[in-house]
Amino acid sequence: MFAQVATPAALVDLDVFDANAHRGKVRAGRLGVALRPHAKTVKSPDLLAGILGPETRGFTVSTLGEIRALGVIVDDLLYAVPLAAGKASAVLAALGDADLRLTVVVDSVAGLAGVPQDSRIDVAIEIDCDGHRGGISPDDPVLSELAARAATGHRLAGVMTHGGGSYLGSKAHVVSVASQEREAVVGAARRLRDDGHDIAMVSVGSTPTFAAVDHLEGVTDARPGVYLFGDLSMEFLGACGPSDLALSVLATVIGSADRGRTSFIDAGWSALSQDRGVPAMAGSTGLGRVGKPGTTPSGADLIVSAANQEHGFVTAPDGGPTRFAIGERVQVWPNHACATAEMHRRLTLVRGGEVVGSAVRPRGW
Amino acid sequence: MFAQVATPAALVDLDVFDANAHRGKVRAGRLGVALRPHAKTVKSPDLLAGILGPETRGFTVSTLGEIRALGVIVDDLLYAVPLAAGKASAVLAALGDADLRLTVVVDSVAGLAGVPQDSRIDVAIEIDCDGHRGGISPDDPVLSELAARAATGHRLAGVMTHGGGSYLGSKAHVVSVASQEREAVVGAARRLRDDGHDIAMVSVGSTPTFAAVDHLEGVTDARPGVYLFGDLSMEFLGACGPSDLALSVLATVIGSADRGRTSFIDAGWSALSQDRGVPAMAGSTGLGRVGKPGTTPSGADLIVSAANQEHGFVTAPDGGPTRFAIGERVQVWPNHACATAEMHRRLTLVRGGEVVGSAVRPRGW
Repeated sequence: MFAQVATPAALVDLDVFDANAHRGKVRAGRLGVALRPHAKTVKSPDLLAGILGPETRGFTVSTLGEIRALGVIVDDLLYAVPLAAGKASAVLAALGDADLRLTVVVDSVAGLAGVPQDSRIDVAIEIDCDGHRGGISPDDPVLSELAARAATGHRLAGVMTHGGGSYLGSKAHVVSVASQEREAVVGAARRLRDDGHDIAMVSVGSTPTFAAVDHLEGVTDARPGVYLFGDLSMEFLGACGPSDLALSVLATVIGSADRGRTSFIDAGWSALSQDRGVPAMAGSTGLGRVGKPGTTPSGADLIVSAANQEHGFVTAPDGGPTRFAIGERVQVWPNHACATAEMHRRLTLVRGGEVVGSAVRPRGW
Repeated sequence: MFAQVATPAALVDLDVFDANAHRGKVRAGRLGVALRPHAKTVKSPDLLAGILGPETRGFTVSTLGEIRALGVIVDDLLYAVPLAAGKASAVLAALGDADLRLTVVVDSVAGLAGVPQDSRIDVAIEIDCDGHRGGISPDDPVLSELAARAATGHRLAGVMTHGGGSYLGSKAHVVSVASQEREAVVGAARRLRDDGHDIAMVSVGSTPTFAAVDHLEGVTDARPGVYLFGDLSMEFLGACGPSDLALSVLATVIGSADRGRTSFIDAGWSALSQDRGVPAMAGSTGLGRVGKPGTTPSGADLIVSAANQEHGFVTAPDGGPTRFAIGERVQVWPNHACATAEMHRRLTLVRGGEVVGSAVRPRGW
């Protein structure tokens, strides 16, 4: 299987990808929100073009490379990282002459000052829902001041938040983060509407909270990203099942040691990333689960326990032999699809066990 | 300083790089060995061409991209990862019509079978010196058998080993790893010469052991790699000083939280990597030390304590305020230069605080 693919290679199973995309759409429909998937995981415009539709009118991005690549397939992008000072002209250059609305998030007056004034550029205020990252608390007096300033010289599109705390606990923890996430942003929107602003965007984001919420009342759009690929972290947090992992790394066994108890593969951290999954996994899957090509991660009882730049060390958690032969192909299921995909410029697309094409991910900032 | 550089950017201070390269040459001369630097850290042929000379006749590589990029500037390369089955034709394609000697390492009969027979391709046997990675123990009976097979159909160039254990302890530990490394490979060479083989290459490698050894009797060449850039891990292991770090990441402060005790920068793990340094550092430098541009890491008392894909979280170890303003530039000194450089296709070259050019790193396998 995949004998003609040079290793290491990032494989995307399109059947699984399509099913993940479909499940996201159905869920967004049921929750009554638009989908604005975070493109940082998949990045490839070829793959992302396939998920557009009435529920998905635009994407979330976090680099100028993503703006350039996706600005040609959609006309609505949310740049979800505060714009670095001095980057205004680069943003305008990335927009080029595209007929596009770009919403830039801000969470400070100083940050707002760096957002270029352009008819295509709107502003959204980042709300802090869990003390995990940036953003303004919905009850912080600065919120009204920042909104007033944002509405002068820019169009204030709305508010957004990211329930990043959803990665930091167990599956049971996600539900409470999800309601906190919704309440924070809906509360902020209410305050700003009371101030007289027209708040069109009330946006939440994170794959675990999107999978866990039972309603999103007051929210207009959701920004999950990793749900399209799935990974061992999302499986651990209950956001996907073991058959929902579209991204894997194909590798070749290049050596063995310790009387067959370690197999070396040609996928080191340069192909896998160094991501060990969400903290509550406590590194139990090493740098990923390993199985024979065509298996699913639930049938993969071996892990990449360590890696050098171009060597992965495959072991069994019980210390037994790996039973891999030199020259054999293996598939590695990553802990964090965003991190693993980031190591690859090209994704190899497979369907029904056959290679059907490839897709390029824009890199850089 | 560096106001015109778009962030995040990987900076290489050429004054420091040149000094590191010079120190390596002097040390190789004193130890009486040739230098065959591992190119996986720097990768850029523009930068590596500058270090060639009588002491440095070739490079060590671990991807076909490095063969393609460096085959045009040298005629002697060591491919230091066992060749994956099925990669023979890709290796020949990477050689193109270059007039080049490529030495491929093997540590198994199965692996040897996959090495293409070509007049430009030699074989070296990887020796295990510390049970840390692949290779054959110098006293394993398989060594003679593998050498005999390698000498039939290929030219057996010699033996090589990698003291990978040098990263796994403290500074004091490196000296014992270094003598183990030398003894293993010299012992293997002796055995193979006793078997009647002409062993021209007796090669050791790792920046910490290269810095720690007091002699390399019987060794022909050394393959340090990260010494050219230096990093916090090498400083910790005593292989460089705090002023010898040529690679850093320039970033911009984009936000703050927790009453100024956290600053957010626009360099997340996609720019820094997730490398937390050698195990004995116990994560004490987070994802890197942070200072104002133009400082050195010893003057940098802040660290990147955590990161998302495009956000770095800067904090002070004592929990005090970071004293950074939004819009300010910072410089991040990485734990592991190989891992941080791997996240960047382009390196921004600086000298005396001024940008003087850029260099491209070949990516992929």
